[in-house]
Amino acid sequence: MANDARLLLREIYPLWAEDRVRFGDTDRLGHVNNAAYATYFETARVELMQRLLSGPESYFVLARIAIDYRAELRELGPIGIGSVITGLGRSSFTTGQAVFQGDLCAATAEGVVVLVDAATRRATPLPETLRQALLALAMPQAAGAGG
Amino acid sequence: MANDARLLLREIYPLWAEDRVRFGDTDRLGHVNNAAYATYFETARVELMQRLLSGPESYFVLARIAIDYRAELRELGPIGIGSVITGLGRSSFTTGQAVFQGDLCAATAEGVVVLVDAATRRATPLPETLRQALLALAMPQAAGAGG
Amino acid sequence: MANDARLLLREIYPLWAEDRVRFGDTDRLGHVNNAAYATYFETARVELMQRLLSGPESYFVLARIAIDYRAELRELGPIGIGSVITGLGRSSFTTGQAVFQGDLCAATAEGVVVLVDAATRRATPLPETLRQALLALAMPQAAGAGG
Amino acid sequence: MANDARLLLREIYPLWAEDRVRFGDTDRLGHVNNAAYATYFETARVELMQRLLSGPESYFVLARIAIDYRAELRELGPIGIGSVITGLGRSSFTTGQAVFQGDLCAATAEGVVVLVDAATRRATPLPETLRQALLALAMPQAAGAGG
Repeated sequence: MANDARLLLREIYPLWAEDRVRFGDTDRLGHVNNAAYATYFETARVELMQRLLSGPESYFVLARIAIDYRAELRELGPIGIGSVITGLGRSSFTTGQAVFQGDLCAATAEGVVVLVDAATRRATPLPETLRQALLALAMPQAAGAGG
Repeated sequence: MANDARLLLREIYPLWAEDRVRFGDTDRLGHVNNAAYATYFETARVELMQRLLSGPESYFVLARIAIDYRAELRELGPIGIGSVITGLGRSSFTTGQAVFQGDLCAATAEGVVVLVDAATRRATPLPETLRQALLALAMPQAAGAGG
Repeated sequence: MANDARLLLREIYPLWAEDRVRFGDTDRLGHVNNAAYATYFETARVELMQRLLSGPESYFVLARIAIDYRAELRELGPIGIGSVITGLGRSSFTTGQAVFQGDLCAATAEGVVVLVDAATRRATPLPETLRQALLALAMPQAAGAGG
Repeated sequence: MANDARLLLREIYPLWAEDRVRFGDTDRLGHVNNAAYATYFETARVELMQRLLSGPESYFVLARIAIDYRAELRELGPIGIGSVITGLGRSSFTTGQAVFQGDLCAATAEGVVVLVDAATRRATPLPETLRQALLALAMPQAAGAGG
């Protein structure tokens, strides 16, 4: 993703979710275990999905996540997870995310989320209302590219 | 439970399940995190429940678990979890369990499992066939007390 | 523990910690997995321990935890965990805890925590200053019994 | 990664690790939670690292992992995780991995692992013996490209 370096910047994220580093999230290396970040990103993605989804006839599926580990987390307590829409496809969209503890960006992630028809259990085109809702959460360029 | 010390002995367990210490089960103290043991005991309890349950009209609920931490686990890899029935009530039974890594008993647990009627979602008496199946997995004294 | 029913009451807890139900805390039964509660209680216990411990010459070890499951949690989001000291021994103390989501008490726990000498790695008597700090967090009766 | 589709094939993996789907790995959607896959891949990566690392003067750090979700896992029990080296850099290497339950490939992953000097805590070139050990675990083309 060409936007990769921008994912480190707090100001690109229109949506923020809260979670916290638990003692059990650490591992014997003394820092937060790599898999815990997948959970932090999930916390924010679930809030994003709940905001976007309108009815029971379709649901979102995570098809791919790529996590870049930027810095260790060794302190327990509150973290913030920023989310932004980085691209729109026919039946999917891509997300950019970052985990911050104070000013420290510990990890960034790029995700691919697919809209699935509940009846057929197959990918289904993003409805126009959903596209508009996603564009409202997009990075400036992405929004421009979508116009 | 008067039988507590017996829970340390491999030979009391008629049922054994396998799990493994994962890297992510450790915490920043360098040993397996206390909550991971609840998961190990669950692995064995789920196998026990699947063996005992006959139909969709009822299901088991864990009402209580008490875990005694006996020794640290610092090595990754296979563990064995022994389970035995330690008591029968009208609509519930009690279990004794232990996590072993090789000869080391790392933790023991006492559980209370309740049979719930799927329709009413309330506790329901243990059917006679289930009582017999539980007695077949009981510690000698418990079986004697139930005879 | 004779005080068991009191553990359901918010007003007995002098200390409160915050955590949150994560999506990944749920299991295929649709509710929060039983092992996640051990993690919630840990969040509060770690805060309690950090408040109590004064130096590197000793540390706390969880020797036992008993969890009573009172109600299912199916909603994500904030939870509060109350903690109170329920008893003092020579080198250990007991805790009472409860997980609340709004007004719902989902689980209570009784724990046994041992003070360990860092040099000998054996249980060591609670210093008088620690005893006083624990009594300040005790349930009224427990404080009375300790006076 | 151009080799992406090959990651679905059992026969490309020279190294296999075992783990198991735990009840607690599932979430309220009824399938294995996406973050659990990060843990499965870690199980195999830790075994790979232990096989490769020779001394305390350096250690490996996971810099990036990209996971493609291919199929749901709904059954508990044993899984196999295959690992292969897909590329060598100056101070890092890339891995390909896949989680299989029976014949079902549930997820594939691409990872970037960096060798870090324990004294400086900075990336350090892969020693020749390590390069040879990595090449012995490489996909045919990757090995060819490295020759």
